[in-house]
Amino acid sequence: MIPQISTIDLYKLASGDVLSLQVYKFIGDIPGKKAYIQANLHGAEIVGNGVIQQLIEYLMTLDQSQLQGEIWLVPVCNPLGVNQRSHMFSTGRFDSYNGKNWNRIFWDYEQEVLDLTEFAKSQINDSPEAIRSNYLARIKQAWAKEHERINRPSSASLSHQYRYQLQSLCLDADYVIDIHSSSNQAIDYTFGFKERIASIKYLLLDYGILMDEYDGDAFDEAFLKPWLALEKELTNLGKEIKFDIESWTLELGAGMAMNPNSVATGFAGIKNYLAHKQMLSLPEEVTSSEVTLVSKHKINSYHAPTGGMVQSRLPLKTKVHPGDQIYQLLSFNKQGTAPELISVCAETQGIVFDVSTNQCVNQGEYVMDILDC
Amino acid sequence: MIPQISTIDLYKLASGDVLSLQVYKFIGDIPGKKAYIQANLHGAEIVGNGVIQQLIEYLMTLDQSQLQGEIWLVPVCNPLGVNQRSHMFSTGRFDSYNGKNWNRIFWDYEQEVLDLTEFAKSQINDSPEAIRSNYLARIKQAWAKEHERINRPSSASLSHQYRYQLQSLCLDADYVIDIHSSSNQAIDYTFGFKERIASIKYLLLDYGILMDEYDGDAFDEAFLKPWLALEKELTNLGKEIKFDIESWTLELGAGMAMNPNSVATGFAGIKNYLAHKQMLSLPEEVTSSEVTLVSKHKINSYHAPTGGMVQSRLPLKTKVHPGDQIYQLLSFNKQGTAPELISVCAETQGIVFDVSTNQCVNQGEYVMDILDC
Amino acid sequence: MIPQISTIDLYKLASGDVLSLQVYKFIGDIPGKKAYIQANLHGAEIVGNGVIQQLIEYLMTLDQSQLQGEIWLVPVCNPLGVNQRSHMFSTGRFDSYNGKNWNRIFWDYEQEVLDLTEFAKSQINDSPEAIRSNYLARIKQAWAKEHERINRPSSASLSHQYRYQLQSLCLDADYVIDIHSSSNQAIDYTFGFKERIASIKYLLLDYGILMDEYDGDAFDEAFLKPWLALEKELTNLGKEIKFDIESWTLELGAGMAMNPNSVATGFAGIKNYLAHKQMLSLPEEVTSSEVTLVSKHKINSYHAPTGGMVQSRLPLKTKVHPGDQIYQLLSFNKQGTAPELISVCAETQGIVFDVSTNQCVNQGEYVMDILDC
Amino acid sequence: MIPQISTIDLYKLASGDVLSLQVYKFIGDIPGKKAYIQANLHGAEIVGNGVIQQLIEYLMTLDQSQLQGEIWLVPVCNPLGVNQRSHMFSTGRFDSYNGKNWNRIFWDYEQEVLDLTEFAKSQINDSPEAIRSNYLARIKQAWAKEHERINRPSSASLSHQYRYQLQSLCLDADYVIDIHSSSNQAIDYTFGFKERIASIKYLLLDYGILMDEYDGDAFDEAFLKPWLALEKELTNLGKEIKFDIESWTLELGAGMAMNPNSVATGFAGIKNYLAHKQMLSLPEEVTSSEVTLVSKHKINSYHAPTGGMVQSRLPLKTKVHPGDQIYQLLSFNKQGTAPELISVCAETQGIVFDVSTNQCVNQGEYVMDILDC
Repeated sequence: MIPQISTIDLYKLASGDVLSLQVYKFIGDIPGKKAYIQANLHGAEIVGNGVIQQLIEYLMTLDQSQLQGEIWLVPVCNPLGVNQRSHMFSTGRFDSYNGKNWNRIFWDYEQEVLDLTEFAKSQINDSPEAIRSNYLARIKQAWAKEHERINRPSSASLSHQYRYQLQSLCLDADYVIDIHSSSNQAIDYTFGFKERIASIKYLLLDYGILMDEYDGDAFDEAFLKPWLALEKELTNLGKEIKFDIESWTLELGAGMAMNPNSVATGFAGIKNYLAHKQMLSLPEEVTSSEVTLVSKHKINSYHAPTGGMVQSRLPLKTKVHPGDQIYQLLSFNKQGTAPELISVCAETQGIVFDVSTNQCVNQGEYVMDILDC
Repeated sequence: MIPQISTIDLYKLASGDVLSLQVYKFIGDIPGKKAYIQANLHGAEIVGNGVIQQLIEYLMTLDQSQLQGEIWLVPVCNPLGVNQRSHMFSTGRFDSYNGKNWNRIFWDYEQEVLDLTEFAKSQINDSPEAIRSNYLARIKQAWAKEHERINRPSSASLSHQYRYQLQSLCLDADYVIDIHSSSNQAIDYTFGFKERIASIKYLLLDYGILMDEYDGDAFDEAFLKPWLALEKELTNLGKEIKFDIESWTLELGAGMAMNPNSVATGFAGIKNYLAHKQMLSLPEEVTSSEVTLVSKHKINSYHAPTGGMVQSRLPLKTKVHPGDQIYQLLSFNKQGTAPELISVCAETQGIVFDVSTNQCVNQGEYVMDILDC
Repeated sequence: MIPQISTIDLYKLASGDVLSLQVYKFIGDIPGKKAYIQANLHGAEIVGNGVIQQLIEYLMTLDQSQLQGEIWLVPVCNPLGVNQRSHMFSTGRFDSYNGKNWNRIFWDYEQEVLDLTEFAKSQINDSPEAIRSNYLARIKQAWAKEHERINRPSSASLSHQYRYQLQSLCLDADYVIDIHSSSNQAIDYTFGFKERIASIKYLLLDYGILMDEYDGDAFDEAFLKPWLALEKELTNLGKEIKFDIESWTLELGAGMAMNPNSVATGFAGIKNYLAHKQMLSLPEEVTSSEVTLVSKHKINSYHAPTGGMVQSRLPLKTKVHPGDQIYQLLSFNKQGTAPELISVCAETQGIVFDVSTNQCVNQGEYVMDILDC
Repeated sequence: MIPQISTIDLYKLASGDVLSLQVYKFIGDIPGKKAYIQANLHGAEIVGNGVIQQLIEYLMTLDQSQLQGEIWLVPVCNPLGVNQRSHMFSTGRFDSYNGKNWNRIFWDYEQEVLDLTEFAKSQINDSPEAIRSNYLARIKQAWAKEHERINRPSSASLSHQYRYQLQSLCLDADYVIDIHSSSNQAIDYTFGFKERIASIKYLLLDYGILMDEYDGDAFDEAFLKPWLALEKELTNLGKEIKFDIESWTLELGAGMAMNPNSVATGFAGIKNYLAHKQMLSLPEEVTSSEVTLVSKHKINSYHAPTGGMVQSRLPLKTKVHPGDQIYQLLSFNKQGTAPELISVCAETQGIVFDVSTNQCVNQGEYVMDILDC
């Protein structure tokens, strides 16, 4: 199966050069669902590009009859973030114009729909398919206004122009997968919504973090929240519907790194998930993993109590108990006394979930996360 | 009158050096209100330091009997932001650890108080002074928990530790003035709350921008919003109280610059305001200015519709009408065609309110604001 | 006259996007000299783009018969530098990978030619034209090795790959003009070589700074120094030749700004220079200006003796005498004492030549230049 | 043995805060040589702080009689570099004001001494001790002028003011050790001068890189080169002297990391070296290691031939032969074609010596070094 490859211009830089997206579309013989998969929204989080490259290679070995529906793949989906450097480090986590996290800029229809209850009422006698179609039409209508706004003389900020291009690719998708990694170094896990918990095991990752509160305007949230809101309204009206619309964020390993295990893990999980969703017909059976599910607020971050160098930090996945030393801080001073070695201990039990790449910390800089599980 | 000068350590850096605040406290013979005035929360916005230096010099010429209450002055109040450089430019607008705007990090009691209605009911028969005192006690109690949180092994992020030190200085203030400037180049104006509109004319600036929606966690909001919330609750209970508690943000001129006119304007306004509030007894009479008051949402930002160089932009304070050319964009390309000159026109009437220092723009970068007034 | 426009790829970024140069070539009816003019080698120094845009527009109004030889124009010649941002400021002065000034990276044949004396001897009986041609052939041969080096598996650093593309455009030029501005704010002037002093007056700028020592590997130096070295060798052999090969750097105004006067000045000077060189046949007469010529070492830089805010600094072009106050520094402290006002005075006479855009300085940061003239 | 601890102010920042050095001086009962050891000149290279902390702890266990001479220790010797951040990464390799590498800013007396031959002649009949003392007096005289220069109204740049404070601590030292690490990830090795090769084995590192050409103005060079120059002059005059003055740079592991093995290696080597120099009297015997010595020009750097993600790179210390694949580049494009996997092969034999931390590279970014040994 040969993908259709298209290029979409994002924005022109001051120099007159243009940064673009390239979309690889695999289109099956039989119409069906649309899966949208992107990687590298944060500049340092490159591992998903390897996953997408393996998906491209793999899908090219399949026959078009093995795919029902469409798979759209967008690697290096944030070129400004990917290419940004400070010295040799990738620092593309924030939009350098306004400091905003590149994954907190997205358009969430739920925040602007005013008459959702009324709309839900008007759909009460329709089929799920019809409701989906009617609601999507409304989303697209609102989106068209976004486009108008950008085309006025006052235009819009770079992040608004960027999100317009990116979200235009997936508003009508059924399954969205956004591949991230830690900016630092973490275990592999899936970020998901409790309302879609049933599918998480098909992504084959050992840990699942469930959003209990929203960060706001993240890519996965912006896609799924409008549908969850509609489901809730319909439920309030006595009509229990669960749309087969899902959104996942995979977190695979470390920033600035192409860890081959994380690439393999991500590839295997996505392939299996697409098979489970019956988009791919594969010889091998669909499998599932046992997933340790934990609420997001169970991630406890440790920041440096004073400035210094982090030593003897416990490695990723270590189990800890309250009171265990989790790292030591070598702290110098300019007050005429000897350097100090400060022992920092765990407040709760759990596992070492994420650790800072930089072991040199100003007071209040991030050192590590313990996942209370 | 000689100020008490005290130094407060903020945080230790990785090198073992400590960054601190220095607070200048002028304390009058007679007890009274407390005014808290700070400058340079954003690293590039240095002009308020000149205002504070003139206030220090001026207050030192007064007799202690001329001051009722206390004036606390904190120049260069964000040392990490002030000292941060990229090449020679001050880039201290965002916390470089998490990209957050340094003026969107503050603790707002209103967001955590759960039982405000109940509290208001319990105060219904008390005097305003007693209510103020009881409410402040509750704020301080909540604040003490913030302190406990920082002292746990997991500590807290640098911006949490910073805000703790900074806000501790003014939780019990009556009048808070936070002196900013544009990061770019703007006219002088006051940022204020419509609930305190009566006092704005004593700050002697020509323009007043009224917050119609909150940005969230800004310094001025974090200080005043809990009191506005309480006023509202009491009003709902039929008890109309306006506490003599106010919060103002002065915006004086341009970033990276010590414009002497802006310094003089800020100094004159604050002196007059303190006299109006009867903290200062001065020979000259209290005056007031005519202020053009405009809602914040009347500021229309223009972003570059494509990449290029900004030319022929109208200067600050120019009056414009819809359709007037406000700037031209010289846009190069790599497609083999000649450079373009794109004319950008005003969408509304108004005045040129703020212009970008940088005239080289990637698509979507900020160019200018028109204030529709 | 319609230019030939060609696009040259510079390098592919990690995202797969490519940054390019666009070259506008005006080719006269009659063969002749080649003038090469570029702008914006440092990211913040955008004013030359306006000059080149005016040159393009102007040359398009001429008839091909009015041009003898070729004029090559390259605006926004360093896209990576032009597009780089820190917050909204252009910080494209240094290659962020290795900290190198973008104008100290160029290939200077003089530094690798080993047998220049021998070569000069071999040319002793040739005409200047023949010598020029033979020497250029040698330069190109050495350059071809540079190309080979880049094409090895170990490749070469981004700045080496970049300079290869850029210098390939002008190795065989007769006149090179590189348009810069101050990164901060300066008067307009020409940077030149004392060996070519006779032509400087045709560029119509009031001040000329003569290199007395080389910075090393600057664009203008890399182009001209090999020819000056050959001239010197030939002179040593008793053969006095001055090749009609020149190199100039125009410095026009301030960084991040498109000052219309600086654009007009640059345009007028280059047009007149090309007419003087008989490349352009224009109705108006060639003119010349009186140029104040000063050696580069006569620029005295003032750095902040301590940290603080710069106030009351004398404006550009002010004449000063030794002992005159040139600026004041408002310096705060964390030692419990009042802020200081430090007066800084001129060490020599001269004029204010360049001033920092940022008036907030750490100890040792640049404040201003006095040109001793 | 208790160290004398002194604090030296480096510079005041714009905020009024001061950054300082803290020097730990261990002074033996018997006068003797002076060893000067510093760490963390480049902000990311923190491992040497751990070495110095272990030296402090260890020396405190010794008796003053076990030390002949003085050991001065300066951890976190570049506070501005140590504390600098971009996002959470340490980027303190370059002075952000001028882009200069913090280890290429130092004052090298050899470059300004004009009459070295004459001086050497004047010393021809003196003892080595007298010559050392006379030459050091001259160096200090020149240094005093540096101080005068800084104290003029025009002052000096931050890096000049910084180097003045830092080099003042070691001009009269006998042995200088500057502890670095790779900014990326490297094997442990010593950087040294071929003229002092005899001592390198006492530092106990497996590899020694010998400078065959100078980078210019590095800390180790600035200290030793004036002495090497004098030795050469004396040799030319027939007087062969080798001063017991040495300078070493230890390179221990990776940037942003406190690798415990690298700390232990550095500590053991320095302790043994000081014992070999008879400054420390220890119960254990002085040992030495077999060192693979290689010239610096044998380090071959590989830069990315195009933009992309680095995969399957050989790990540190792997032996390679010409033609072996050393890494693969996953390169995306915006031209409508599938991503490419580019295989990059070794040009020479050798070992993998240093690898980039960031596996996401723009064209021309650094990927790895092969040491041809």
